[in-house]
Amino acid sequence: MAFPYFLRVAYVGTAFSGFQVQTVLRSVQGDLWKALKTFDPAAPMPQGTGRTDAGVHARAQGVLVVLSKEWDPYRLLAAFNAHLGPDARVMEVLPAPPGFFPRAHAVGKRYVYRIQEGPAEDPFLHGRRWHVHGAVPLDREAMAQAASHLVGVHDFSSFRHQECAARSPIKEIHAIRLEGEGRSLDLVFEGNRFLMHMVRIMAGTLVEVGKGRYAPGDLPGILEARDRRRAGITAPPHGLYLEQVWYQRRWGIGEPSPWPEEAPEDSERP
Amino acid sequence: MAFPYFLRVAYVGTAFSGFQVQTVLRSVQGDLWKALKTFDPAAPMPQGTGRTDAGVHARAQGVLVVLSKEWDPYRLLAAFNAHLGPDARVMEVLPAPPGFFPRAHAVGKRYVYRIQEGPAEDPFLHGRRWHVHGAVPLDREAMAQAASHLVGVHDFSSFRHQECAARSPIKEIHAIRLEGEGRSLDLVFEGNRFLMHMVRIMAGTLVEVGKGRYAPGDLPGILEARDRRRAGITAPPHGLYLEQVWYQRRWGIGEPSPWPEEAPEDSERP
Repeated sequence: MAFPYFLRVAYVGTAFSGFQVQTVLRSVQGDLWKALKTFDPAAPMPQGTGRTDAGVHARAQGVLVVLSKEWDPYRLLAAFNAHLGPDARVMEVLPAPPGFFPRAHAVGKRYVYRIQEGPAEDPFLHGRRWHVHGAVPLDREAMAQAASHLVGVHDFSSFRHQECAARSPIKEIHAIRLEGEGRSLDLVFEGNRFLMHMVRIMAGTLVEVGKGRYAPGDLPGILEARDRRRAGITAPPHGLYLEQVWYQRRWGIGEPSPWPEEAPEDSERP
Repeated sequence: MAFPYFLRVAYVGTAFSGFQVQTVLRSVQGDLWKALKTFDPAAPMPQGTGRTDAGVHARAQGVLVVLSKEWDPYRLLAAFNAHLGPDARVMEVLPAPPGFFPRAHAVGKRYVYRIQEGPAEDPFLHGRRWHVHGAVPLDREAMAQAASHLVGVHDFSSFRHQECAARSPIKEIHAIRLEGEGRSLDLVFEGNRFLMHMVRIMAGTLVEVGKGRYAPGDLPGILEARDRRRAGITAPPHGLYLEQVWYQRRWGIGEPSPWPEEAPEDSERP
């Protein structure tokens, strides 16, 4: 018999070479599998919802594990956490319905790109937010105006890493919000699917708009060019968080998406 | 000529053996002095406001440095930060008035003891909050009631480490507040002076009240006993933050205290 469970996993990405299992380097998927094998040696490899790059954080990576016996969810959570390092934690466990597969059944995601401004980096935020120096604060109004051009269905080829393997560069961004006060700035991105490095290139470009290096009105031209060289820098990984994943409502996993459901697609890596 | 400057220093205490300079182990005072000597070799050792123990954090340690030439405050901040590790940062620099001495002229401090509840430790809060397990949430009403007995002028001998060198165990707590929602709980302590481990013993005792091991009505008896063995456990260092220091108004350093000023005393180490 096979007993599937859904895990919500949080991790500080700093010491991982990414979510996806690797031959030598430390990965979240690899650590989860190692933990799982200590109490269920025959269990297959845990399956995540979206890959995250080296250094990228997650508060809600959705992971499917299939066990060979039934578990009390709380005991399964404790069993995983007893065998994980302090930088990765199973925060929640639910029995998963048969047939549920996180990557295939995700309909949307929320990524947050976290920035701190100011002359000195807050030591409590080192590795947790992108520290943007600069005597002049970022022009948030210009950033919000630029962001509005990215919302909707677009060909995001200009915001895509050259190694991105996604079949189509056409994705939908449901919303981009600028949140936070004072020196703290959160760029919130909600969309159906994301290309490799897409959030980091959008964040880097918006910060360059905030510094006056691009004008908000440049964004439509950057999108139309379908050329990575036209967009701004790729923001560093340590400001990025996979914050929430929405699945098709019919599985009853987590909160339902506030956005319309759509047919999902394959490869991605923001 | 001597040019005194006041620094507000923030540090993640994890990798420090405390604020105070040590012969071998890494300290915040030692790191500040090393940084200072790279650009002013003859400068005397920086002087802090309050010692913090190994693993204890600070958002606002007040430090006096005396330089042999005049500096632009922003350039002095940048010079320090260029020679400090990412876990300690000078967040603010002000020219200090002659005669100002942080330890002697502090009239009050705010410490915050940070707790997270719940079955799994949030990996982003590892080393930054005390993770209190437990199926049942802490009884915050009982904790608040217990805390009210600690407010005021008391002999805090029951809340004092045996190695504490303070002349008098009589201190005044101006206020204790419980803040935070959900699984996050901040215990905010404001007072004139604190004994060695005093905040950590108060926090440990309040958590034991929250778990039902002590009743709020036990607190007056614990104070009266003047016996460390009567109070609860010493909460671990990694939940404690030196959050704010108030100085005598006449020096014009930082925000003035919301509490009446009093004659300060010598040794302390919460």
